[in-house]
Parts: sequence; structure tokens; C-alpha cells
Amino acid sequence: MASFTSMWADLEPVGRAPSGGYRRFALTREDHTLREWFAGEAAARGLEVVTDRAGNQWAWWNPGPEPGIAIGSHLDSVPDGGAFDGPLGVVSAFAAIDALRAAGFTPARPVAVTNFRDEEGARFGVACAGSRVLTGALDPDRARALRDDDGVTLGEALGGQDLGPDPEMLARVAAFVELHVEQGRGLVDLGRPVAVGSGIWPHGRWRVDLPGEANHAGTTRLADRRDPMLAHAELVLAARAAATTHDAVATCGKVRVEPNGVNAIPSLVTGWVDARGADEERVRAVVDELRELAQAHGGRITEESWTGPTEFDPPLVRRIAALLDDAPVLATGAGHDAGILAAAGVPTAMLFVRNPTGVSHSPAESAEEADCLAGVAALAGVVAELAA
Amino acid sequence: MASFTSMWADLEPVGRAPSGGYRRFALTREDHTLREWFAGEAAARGLEVVTDRAGNQWAWWNPGPEPGIAIGSHLDSVPDGGAFDGPLGVVSAFAAIDALRAAGFTPARPVAVTNFRDEEGARFGVACAGSRVLTGALDPDRARALRDDDGVTLGEALGGQDLGPDPEMLARVAAFVELHVEQGRGLVDLGRPVAVGSGIWPHGRWRVDLPGEANHAGTTRLADRRDPMLAHAELVLAARAAATTHDAVATCGKVRVEPNGVNAIPSLVTGWVDARGADEERVRAVVDELRELAQAHGGRITEESWTGPTEFDPPLVRRIAALLDDAPVLATGAGHDAGILAAAGVPTAMLFVRNPTGVSHSPAESAEEADCLAGVAALAGVVAELAA
Repeated sequence: MASFTSMWADLEPVGRAPSGGYRRFALTREDHTLREWFAGEAAARGLEVVTDRAGNQWAWWNPGPEPGIAIGSHLDSVPDGGAFDGPLGVVSAFAAIDALRAAGFTPARPVAVTNFRDEEGARFGVACAGSRVLTGALDPDRARALRDDDGVTLGEALGGQDLGPDPEMLARVAAFVELHVEQGRGLVDLGRPVAVGSGIWPHGRWRVDLPGEANHAGTTRLADRRDPMLAHAELVLAARAAATTHDAVATCGKVRVEPNGVNAIPSLVTGWVDARGADEERVRAVVDELRELAQAHGGRITEESWTGPTEFDPPLVRRIAALLDDAPVLATGAGHDAGILAAAGVPTAMLFVRNPTGVSHSPAESAEEADCLAGVAALAGVVAELAA
Repeated sequence: MASFTSMWADLEPVGRAPSGGYRRFALTREDHTLREWFAGEAAARGLEVVTDRAGNQWAWWNPGPEPGIAIGSHLDSVPDGGAFDGPLGVVSAFAAIDALRAAGFTPARPVAVTNFRDEEGARFGVACAGSRVLTGALDPDRARALRDDDGVTLGEALGGQDLGPDPEMLARVAAFVELHVEQGRGLVDLGRPVAVGSGIWPHGRWRVDLPGEANHAGTTRLADRRDPMLAHAELVLAARAAATTHDAVATCGKVRVEPNGVNAIPSLVTGWVDARGADEERVRAVVDELRELAQAHGGRITEESWTGPTEFDPPLVRRIAALLDDAPVLATGAGHDAGILAAAGVPTAMLFVRNPTGVSHSPAESAEEADCLAGVAALAGVVAELAA
């Protein structure tokens, strides 16, 4: 049975990219290795591992018929993501159980460590796919039809595996607490190691298709061009300006160009916009401005995903904050499986662990060991409180 | 021995993409198929096929020790390129020989049909790689080190094949005339089917690396971001503005984003700029403006290729124009193997065939059959004049 430090060391090489970041995408060899690791850690602790119909892993301590307390997170990453986003929650959950057992604690109800599948949506484009299918928020047929950049569908990647909602598993969860590295500088500014999450900003992803006319870069007069790279440039700048105007955030992190040749005016540029804000109105206002711009260029904007505002369970949030010496309570702009479970009616909260750089989705993401151990202690305290 | 029409039909399916355009890249299966086709057409005509040390194919009619007249072009394409750019010159060259033979013409000196390798540079990034290696303009070691998007080097793609300049083959070429579809509307405006090329604008390709700081799209305040997608947007708009100011053309047709994730601020955006103009000063003025912009964003601009202005052989151009009933004489913004040979001292000219759309490097590129046959007749007339 591995300690926090040795679990961390075991995960360190899996899916490591030359950048120093991680490429751990759903239903790849790296994902399989991580799931084997999860099952091994669970088995070493005598936990009962169950995979739900959506492919999420659950490792139960003291399993029984009554609903229990779930803790955990995910093990997949964005392209070149950091080491902490996801794995910190899973490793801390195992470590919290170890700490409780070492202290002689016996749970009065079941406790589960979870590993949600495909939280980042890096491969098939839909974030929190595992928890969305579990709760019924994502139709399994639509999920099966999602394609990766090589044209492989999620259904093909699953092979013969089952996929569907799992209300029976969901009914076994009386509460879910997800520990996560903070993805900003809130705790740095406050000088505290751990916060409680109060909710998640509404957020969505939009695809913007901007058609052009392919032509030769050397022989086509400027006046004769219909060049969608120019329209995309305007989109990128307009997204930043609109986010500033409406006090939201908007990001153009992905672009695809056809044919993407140095000496060819593109026939099509597809850009993606990720937009979030403290309330839905400001996010919609950003997207409305971009829709107008896209239409003015003969393009069109398609909503690929939308998640309304999430408020975690207020009594649970207050109870945890009080338990943790009046820990700060913070909202976040990042989506999480905790948000999907909250939307499905599961009493849910989160714990955030201080991140000195404030950077996430990057190899620069970090957390001090002392803060990680403070997170483990906080999580153990939460389980002791909720499963007593 | 196939007619113009049936040669055209034979080539039609090779490397055809779903877009209706072509993906015929150097040293791929499609390229191999096209080279086999070339060798087969040459053999059917009793021509002697020789491959030079740079991988270009030559099919000699009446080979002998004295220098001869070369006609031809290339068979590779840009991504989703049109059917005519390259193949029209090769097919017309075979058809011109057929026409001359049918008319009972016997050449007094050798005549070659050529297929230059990797004219577009679509796979390894350097245009006219075959003719540049042939003439010594591209060092073979540098060529071998060029990489495609999958990381395969040209040297690896060559396998054990030789690569180097071939001054002996070059010495066999007394003159080179390349027929090509026009890549603009010059002949449409003039109401003529065929023009003679006078020269090629100076042109180059620059890579612009714009570094940023990878971070989470939802949790990073706008003020804390260092987002190179914004810098690239400015680059694209500045390239168009600078080209307008300096009466040149500039195109950003290719971009690469790291990590290219919807919810990740990029760590690096690399853009490419293709710039051309009637003289070197205006092209350099465009690039200087972009260099300043790149440097202001902490980025850097690298010249990947540069070709100075090319003037085709003036006596040869005048002789051909006179021969073709005072055909119009036009310069072009597109690079060609004819430009590389001209720079190496070979007396060179081009013929352009009317393109009703004016569009090139696109499936919309076109030419009427009657104009193609007028091109064949013109080329046959040129050979009859030069090889008599």
C-alpha cells in the first residue's frame, strides 16, 4: 500500500510528454495504464472496485446497501497538461483513507474513491463525458458518435464496452467531495493552503466555421481574395474585446485550417471559443457579439457544449468550511465532474489546494507537498465528519 | 500511346481528395504512381527515361551528346490543389511530341519531357526542391534534413536513394520551356488562350514563432494571460495591411498551435507568411513590418526560403511571343522550376494557358479543353522552332 509520495511517483512517468506536461487521453494506452494503477491501489487497500456503465471507476470501502460518501476526481489530462489537475484528487482520496485507517477510524457508511473517465474531453471534445453519461446529461448514442482528430469514434474506441447512464450507481452516492488543485491565485493571495468550492461559473464551447475561397498565395490579387484567416484573426481579437467589455473570460485555444498550406489561401478556417463568466448573461453577451461577426463573414457558430451555473450544496459547503477552521470559500471558472453530479441532484462540494503559480492546464501547474498533505488531512476530516 | 484526353483521364483519380482537389505529395504512394505513369507514357513513345541525381525524371526523344530542348513541369500538388497546376505542363509536353511526330517533324537535336520532383514543397516545406537540388541551389544535406509534419525527414523518405546536384544533366539542357495553367485572370481579361511568361516576382516564406504561457481557459484572468493566439491574429491582419501599403501580396495560409486545446491558452503559435511583389524592396518592407510586430510580442521571424526576381531569357521570350502570333507577355507571382533553371543560367521561358476562374491551388482551378489544345499547339510550335 503506497504512501501519497510513492503514489505520486508511480504516476509521474505515465503519459509524460517532451514538454514536461502530460498527454493522458481517454481510451488510450496511457488511460488504460492509469486505470490499472487505480485498480491496483484499490486492491492493495482491500477496496471493492466497480466500473459503472459510463466507464467511471469506484473503489468502495465498507460497501453496503446504504448510500455512501464519494471522494476522488479524474486521471486524464488536457494536451500537455500539468501533473495535478485530476490526479491530486484521486491520490489524496486514497491517502485520506489511509490516514483515517491509521487513526483507527471505522466508517459508519460506505466510502468510495472515484476515477471519472474523460473529464477533460481532450480526445473526443466533450468535457466530463464520464460523469455526463453516468447522470444522463450526455446521451450515450451522441457520445458514441463523437470523433477524435483521427476520425475514430468514441464508440469504436470503446470496442464492445457498454455505455449508458447508471442510476443505480448514482443512487449509492449520498454526497461527493472532489479535491482539486486550485487553477488560480486565490489561495496564494489569501495565504491559505485549502479552500472550499462554492460553485462553478457557467461555461461553454463554441465552434466557429469561417469559409473562404482557396487560391494561390502568389497570384491572387488582394482585392480578389476571400481569406478566412483574416476573419479568424478578427474573431480572436473580438473574443478578447467582448470578454473585457462583459467582464467574462473568452479563449481561442484551438484552430483548424484547410488546407493549411504556406502558399494557399485557406478554403476554411475553424476556430473554437471557450467562454465563461460569473453569470450566464455575460457569457451569452460575448457569444452574441461573436455570432454577429461570424455571420458578417459568411460563417456560422455552433454551440458544442453548455453548462449552466453550478452552486454546490450550501449546507454541505458551510459544514465543510466550518470543519476546516473557517476555510475560504471560492467559486471557480473551471468545469468539474463535481458540477455534473451537483446538477444531477447529488449533494456536492469541492476542496481546492493552493497552487503557487496559479497556472493550470500547463506543465507549470504546481502544488507544494505540505499543501498537498494539508489537502489530504482536510479530505480525511470531511470523510470522518460525513461517514461517522 | 495515349491522347491528351486519355492521359488526362488516367491522371484524374490519382491522389484525389474528398474536396475534389488533389493531395499528391513528394515521395508518397501517389507520387510513385505518377512517376510510374510518366515512365509508362515515355516508354510507349520510345523515349529514353533517365532520373537525375535530384530525382527529377527526363524522357528523351532523339537523345544524343549535344544539348537539347526540355519541356515539361511537375506532377505533385499542394494540399487540395487543382488538377492543372503541374500536370498540364507534363501532359501537354507528351502531346506536343505526338503532334510533331504526327506532322512528320524530326528533331535536329534532343528533346526532353521533364517531371520535376516536389515542386510545391507541400510535404517538406521547400518549394522546387527537385530543381533546386539539381542546380545546386539547395544543399543535399540540408534537403535530407527537412521534415514533414509527421517528423519524417526527406532523407528517411528517400530510403537509400542518392541525392545531389547533377551538372551533367543540366549541361544537356540548352533551353527549358515550361507550360503552366495561368494562376490569375490576365488571359481572361485579354481574351487570349496562351501567353508567354516574362519572369517571376521575388518571393519568400517566413516562419513566425510566437511564444505564450499555457494556462487554463476558465480560471486565468485576462490580465494574467500571455496568449499568443492574439499575437498571431495581429500578425495576420498586419500582413494584409503591410501588403496593401507596399503594393505586394502577403498570405498567412498555415498555422500550428501548441497544444491546440479548446480550454487551454496556447503555449506557442507558429504562423507562416508567404510574401511576394514586383520587386524585392516591397517584399522586404512587408517582412520588416512583421518582424517588428513579432519582436514586440517576444517572438521571432525566420526566413525559410527566398527567391529573388527571375527574368526569363529575353531573346527566347521575344522569339516565342513572335512565333505565337504576338502572344501577350506576362509576369507571375508564382514560383516555378523554370525560375530555378533560369537562375542557374539555363535559357528559359514559360507558356501560360488561360484559366477561366483565375483560381489556382484549389479544386476550382480550371482550363477549357480548347485552350489546353491551343497550349499543346503552341508548345509544339516552340519545339519545332527550337529543335529544328
